[in-house]
Amino acid sequence: MSTLEHEMLEIGRRARIAANALRLASGDQRTAALHAIAQRLRARAKAIAAANEADVAAAQRNGLDEALVDRLNLDLAGATALAESVATIAAQPDPVGAITEDWTRPNGLRIQRVRTPIGVIGMIFESRPNVAADAGALALRSGNAVILRGGSDSAATVAAIVEELRTALNETGLPQDAIQLVPTQDRAAVGLMLAGLNGAIDVLIPRGGKSLVTRVQSEARVPVFAHLEGICHTYVHRAADSAKAKAIVINAKMRRVAVCGATETLLIDKTIAPQLLPQISAALREAGCELRGDEAARAITSVNAATEEDWRTEYLAPVLSVRVVTGIEQAIEHIARYGSQHTESIITEDADTAARFLREVDSAIVLHNASTQFADGGEFGFGGEIGIATGRLHARGPVGAEQLTTFKYVIHGDGQIRP
Amino acid sequence: MSTLEHEMLEIGRRARIAANALRLASGDQRTAALHAIAQRLRARAKAIAAANEADVAAAQRNGLDEALVDRLNLDLAGATALAESVATIAAQPDPVGAITEDWTRPNGLRIQRVRTPIGVIGMIFESRPNVAADAGALALRSGNAVILRGGSDSAATVAAIVEELRTALNETGLPQDAIQLVPTQDRAAVGLMLAGLNGAIDVLIPRGGKSLVTRVQSEARVPVFAHLEGICHTYVHRAADSAKAKAIVINAKMRRVAVCGATETLLIDKTIAPQLLPQISAALREAGCELRGDEAARAITSVNAATEEDWRTEYLAPVLSVRVVTGIEQAIEHIARYGSQHTESIITEDADTAARFLREVDSAIVLHNASTQFADGGEFGFGGEIGIATGRLHARGPVGAEQLTTFKYVIHGDGQIRP
Repeated sequence: MSTLEHEMLEIGRRARIAANALRLASGDQRTAALHAIAQRLRARAKAIAAANEADVAAAQRNGLDEALVDRLNLDLAGATALAESVATIAAQPDPVGAITEDWTRPNGLRIQRVRTPIGVIGMIFESRPNVAADAGALALRSGNAVILRGGSDSAATVAAIVEELRTALNETGLPQDAIQLVPTQDRAAVGLMLAGLNGAIDVLIPRGGKSLVTRVQSEARVPVFAHLEGICHTYVHRAADSAKAKAIVINAKMRRVAVCGATETLLIDKTIAPQLLPQISAALREAGCELRGDEAARAITSVNAATEEDWRTEYLAPVLSVRVVTGIEQAIEHIARYGSQHTESIITEDADTAARFLREVDSAIVLHNASTQFADGGEFGFGGEIGIATGRLHARGPVGAEQLTTFKYVIHGDGQIRP
Repeated sequence: MSTLEHEMLEIGRRARIAANALRLASGDQRTAALHAIAQRLRARAKAIAAANEADVAAAQRNGLDEALVDRLNLDLAGATALAESVATIAAQPDPVGAITEDWTRPNGLRIQRVRTPIGVIGMIFESRPNVAADAGALALRSGNAVILRGGSDSAATVAAIVEELRTALNETGLPQDAIQLVPTQDRAAVGLMLAGLNGAIDVLIPRGGKSLVTRVQSEARVPVFAHLEGICHTYVHRAADSAKAKAIVINAKMRRVAVCGATETLLIDKTIAPQLLPQISAALREAGCELRGDEAARAITSVNAATEEDWRTEYLAPVLSVRVVTGIEQAIEHIARYGSQHTESIITEDADTAARFLREVDSAIVLHNASTQFADGGEFGFGGEIGIATGRLHARGPVGAEQLTTFKYVIHGDGQIRP
């Protein structure tokens, strides 16, 4: 066994022991630890921002591209925001121990379904250092241990953050190893995590670019909560309110173009397109967005031509593909064919059509008359998110503390035997 | 591509198309199909029993061991019971479309969490032919398509059953391919299912012996709901009621010894063992059960010696290992070390001790003063079960229609954009 393998298995072993202790800790104790974490992050925001300055300077020296440096950046305000984010998670209801179902059988057996922690979460992420604080806090809120593996660019910032989390755990009498950071940037460490560290990891959550998520999804030997991409659609139905449609499309595309909930394709009914598409197109262009349309769209407004590839592309940039459709059926078909089962919205004043769209579109999140950029754990009221999942099992959509739990059946009897 | 591979991928493709249709079918339509299935199974019970006679005769000719022939057996009463089982599942509430959470955000967005079908279930099972009817019915109740792969021993019986299920689907206007049977016994077909049939299978459920489940768990490239074994414990606490303890232990072990919920190890407090263990031991021996005890147990009652291996063994036979423990801590420790996270029961009149056991034992099912043999979907009121899961993600314990669903978030807005 290599030194690295030995070291990683040891991290897994310690995480499992911490998870067992955490599973039995009270909700109050975990809440106290979350408040202690928020307090320490607030008190130490300057030191964290200083560590981040070093990361950013190194990234610039290494010629990292601007967008990546931007993701990495955590100034004093950002470092302070970490604390607020943890405080919000601390205020969330404790999911552990919640009874979600409760029934009594004819023989008198009372059966309860009770939420319990999953166990150990393996978190593999890239540049954004705030993921360390959010993931640590959400894992703790849900009674799970977490093993964090950050990217090399943000290594100093993440180490500074995790140091505070662990100190706060220690201060409140919880095991430090409930939150561990993989101390090496050796890529083989990721391979070992994907293999599950000898059964020590119950679920993996990758956060980062497509190549990271693809690798995790294809090689992991344990379950994965993830989304590979967010090819989100906004569909403007013929009965749409024009003002709402315009405001929502612009927000859905341009509020932030690099988030997974940004709309990448606009579908618009052919009966409303001649009147509405030119307005939307003008507003988007004014905001700096390039449009790529199908033939029908180009007959209405002067935009670049979309190719087949455009329908399959998550731009994460100020680019929007536009297709004119004959109606809801074609819109739903397009989404089923090209979408990533992430988030889709319909804009219409017709309640029946909206109901049909919400029912038939098979995505993690479907919206009526609202921006796809609401695809976010904070906006759902989860106090944050550890990731967004487009898989169909266990977790789906924004993953907050509740989706980081499993359950057990607790049965209360009085001597029942089975006939 | 081999002919087999082509054929299997085609089955997967058809299952996915059927799943999409089924997802949009109404609950009433699926209920009608379930009633039609029950009716056909009832009407054709004789033909199914006749097909089974052929399977049984062939098995006997091939010298299959008696226990396996017994599992295979489906006489006229058994064939009729299939129909009753399906009728029970038809009467279960439709999980699809159920709103499990519903809240409104400060910005007016109303978020609902709605149950939806998973998609396509791959079911790999061995001798028991009734699995085909139960799995088909539970998949249909939950809006999923299913691909069934039975064992060679029960091939004729399973084919006869599936024929009726498909005819009933057809009669009620649902796609026949919502329930498909792999028509070959070529073992490579299983390998192709484990690889997911090109993304056509969302989850695999193996039902059968340890070697089948081990293979599925280690080779599957898609999620698996399963239990490898049920090493279930009954713990008799010092404050146990003697009569309840005796009745429950005997039932938990001997009602049926070959089910996964059968107790394999008895843990008993040292303060109560001298008085109670001889009675339990005498009753079990009278019922034909062999006991294997640790040293302390053997000092109290004359039984064979248990080895370390016994604590790790799922006998599925009239054998019970017995260990005398110092108290609840040692009992919980023993279960954590040797158990399979399936089902464990505590017998005590002390409510605090019971609560501690129910909280600290990390198994899919924990019981107080009841037999471990209640680990069964029918006994839970699920109308049946497609399997029992000891994994921690998505499904746990008896898997009925509800656990065969996933969910989506449906968001109702009125023009909201994200600031």
